[in-house]
Amino acid sequence: MAATVAAFPVRVSHALAQAMQGARIVRQASPENLESDFGALSEFITPTEQHYVRSHFAVPQVDIAAWTLQVRGAVGQPLTLTLEQLRALPKVSKVVTLECAGNGRVFLNPAVGGVQWERGAVSTAEWTGVRLADLLAKAGVATDATRVAFEGMDKGDVKNTPLPAGPITFHRSVSIEDAKARDVFVAYAINGQPLPAAHGAPARLIVPGCYGMASVKWLSSIEAIKGEFGSYWESTDYAYWDRSTGRPLRRPLMGMQVKSSIAKPSPNGQVARGATTEIVGAAWSDGTVTRVEVSTDGGATWRDAEFIDPESAVTWRRWRLKWQVPATGSEAVLMTRATDAKGRTQPMTRNNDYGTYVIHHVVPITVKIT
Amino acid sequence: MAATVAAFPVRVSHALAQAMQGARIVRQASPENLESDFGALSEFITPTEQHYVRSHFAVPQVDIAAWTLQVRGAVGQPLTLTLEQLRALPKVSKVVTLECAGNGRVFLNPAVGGVQWERGAVSTAEWTGVRLADLLAKAGVATDATRVAFEGMDKGDVKNTPLPAGPITFHRSVSIEDAKARDVFVAYAINGQPLPAAHGAPARLIVPGCYGMASVKWLSSIEAIKGEFGSYWESTDYAYWDRSTGRPLRRPLMGMQVKSSIAKPSPNGQVARGATTEIVGAAWSDGTVTRVEVSTDGGATWRDAEFIDPESAVTWRRWRLKWQVPATGSEAVLMTRATDAKGRTQPMTRNNDYGTYVIHHVVPITVKIT
Repeated sequence: MAATVAAFPVRVSHALAQAMQGARIVRQASPENLESDFGALSEFITPTEQHYVRSHFAVPQVDIAAWTLQVRGAVGQPLTLTLEQLRALPKVSKVVTLECAGNGRVFLNPAVGGVQWERGAVSTAEWTGVRLADLLAKAGVATDATRVAFEGMDKGDVKNTPLPAGPITFHRSVSIEDAKARDVFVAYAINGQPLPAAHGAPARLIVPGCYGMASVKWLSSIEAIKGEFGSYWESTDYAYWDRSTGRPLRRPLMGMQVKSSIAKPSPNGQVARGATTEIVGAAWSDGTVTRVEVSTDGGATWRDAEFIDPESAVTWRRWRLKWQVPATGSEAVLMTRATDAKGRTQPMTRNNDYGTYVIHHVVPITVKIT
Repeated sequence: MAATVAAFPVRVSHALAQAMQGARIVRQASPENLESDFGALSEFITPTEQHYVRSHFAVPQVDIAAWTLQVRGAVGQPLTLTLEQLRALPKVSKVVTLECAGNGRVFLNPAVGGVQWERGAVSTAEWTGVRLADLLAKAGVATDATRVAFEGMDKGDVKNTPLPAGPITFHRSVSIEDAKARDVFVAYAINGQPLPAAHGAPARLIVPGCYGMASVKWLSSIEAIKGEFGSYWESTDYAYWDRSTGRPLRRPLMGMQVKSSIAKPSPNGQVARGATTEIVGAAWSDGTVTRVEVSTDGGATWRDAEFIDPESAVTWRRWRLKWQVPATGSEAVLMTRATDAKGRTQPMTRNNDYGTYVIHHVVPITVKIT
């Protein structure tokens, strides 16, 4: 237990080689994996050029004039929609927080492979597009369809075993039930502008409340399915061992677990001895976050933070707390834990059945008192 | 393509360190993984002490007097049966061929990890027990149950990623439909005798026509399930990439693919120049094998072999063919390919979406002419 609440691993440091691209940290140049500067956290809506980017493969070459979206499978009338036709359908705009399922991976101890995200693979944007429910209704989805599969145009070789032979596209599915409950939509705009290539132009899925991998980019087809699916991206990668039946069963990652993260002060940063400062952060889950508690003494005592943003089930809520820095001592260990309306509180310890994903346990950070 | 029909890999040789235990080859001593001597193939029914043994973990300590079998989950009336109560139920006896899904793994090129089975992880026995359908009917299985999960008492740490945290039991599931179609049963006897410990005493599952991993040993519970299952043993291990929809989807291994294997002459064995000899082997699938063809010239020409055993959907059929060994040359490349009543013929090339399992493509063997 102690290991999981140890102070911030020393290998996490902005002193590590990190090229900056605009306000983002380049975790991987090719394919492009860019982390937002979570320490800034100045806005509720992340400016597009600061939104994190997660890519599995190179950005696909898409001829937008020739691009179409297929709606097919267990439907009465398959559809082929141009971008113009998609834009002509009734539209919806929603502010949604997306978090990469691997956000915080650098905090895992022992270290694991994969993109070494720190705090910033989470961002909030307003997305505009067409409801999946409208597209499925237009295509006449079969009443006994159980899932909807989404395929992207990005393709390449994968790394995790068990390996399928040869390159594959990114494709994933959502249950019909979950798609309805989460009001999934196909977005063609972010923050009022057409999608940039890195965000899946010309259209991508948005699955509110789910880890980012569910929101398939460079969308090429939507397929209604009867029965099970089980792609590489939900059985090998982006899946976890569910123990709810007592035995570990492989399940696709979906909803974001409740999590809070400290933006200011920075890990290993400095605070002035005896001064009054502010601890600021954000918290999110796939339900409304109702409480954030902060400890400045390594978990011995906790105080409730104040929310900056209103209640929302699909976006983060920024929060703050005034802190009287001690007049003695050389460092302090800060922790934060959130609770949501579903009654879930961040755990103090890591659940290894999540593999290299869902890093939402309480991660203490150490700040220097100078 | 050429690589997959190359001559028998030189690393396969009985000159390799192989302790013999009775008539079986010890591929791994602990846990016990024993291969039958396929080169012998003298009997239709493999004597129990020659039947192959596949163990994932140490043989569990079972107090047979205290042992019970649970029938639970989506049932109206859960059952707890002692061995005596199980034996008192209407019984069925069936001759069934079981093949380990990794049988022939040593022939893969490049080499892969796992128990290096050659030809003998396949055997045929008469099993006696109680029909699963009878047990489910007695427990009042729900009409909307979709799968049945089976749990063994053997437990340990697993090796293949993605890894569940900590030791797990061996457990697996079969769809209700498949369980009916295959007439699955719980066996407490092999070849008329109580099960030996290595074969799952006091009771194990038998899933006729399926690779051996479906026939869970040391059975402790039978659980009716609504919805998906997806254990380690059917998502990570013992699964394959199904391309039938165009995309690789992870599916549990189940039915045995059509396969034939040469018992005599042995790989790298000798035949007398110009003599008349007999090529003997067996063929099986999860459907009746209807044809076996043999080539003695590396696949240039093929002749039909004659069956020794009668038609059967759930057992092997031994076959033979008279062969006039050439009067010239120093070696011959022998091949065999089977076809079953489902219209499937052994492929000439390896499908890598099977990972380290289902080695059923045509594997040429070379014999020396002396």
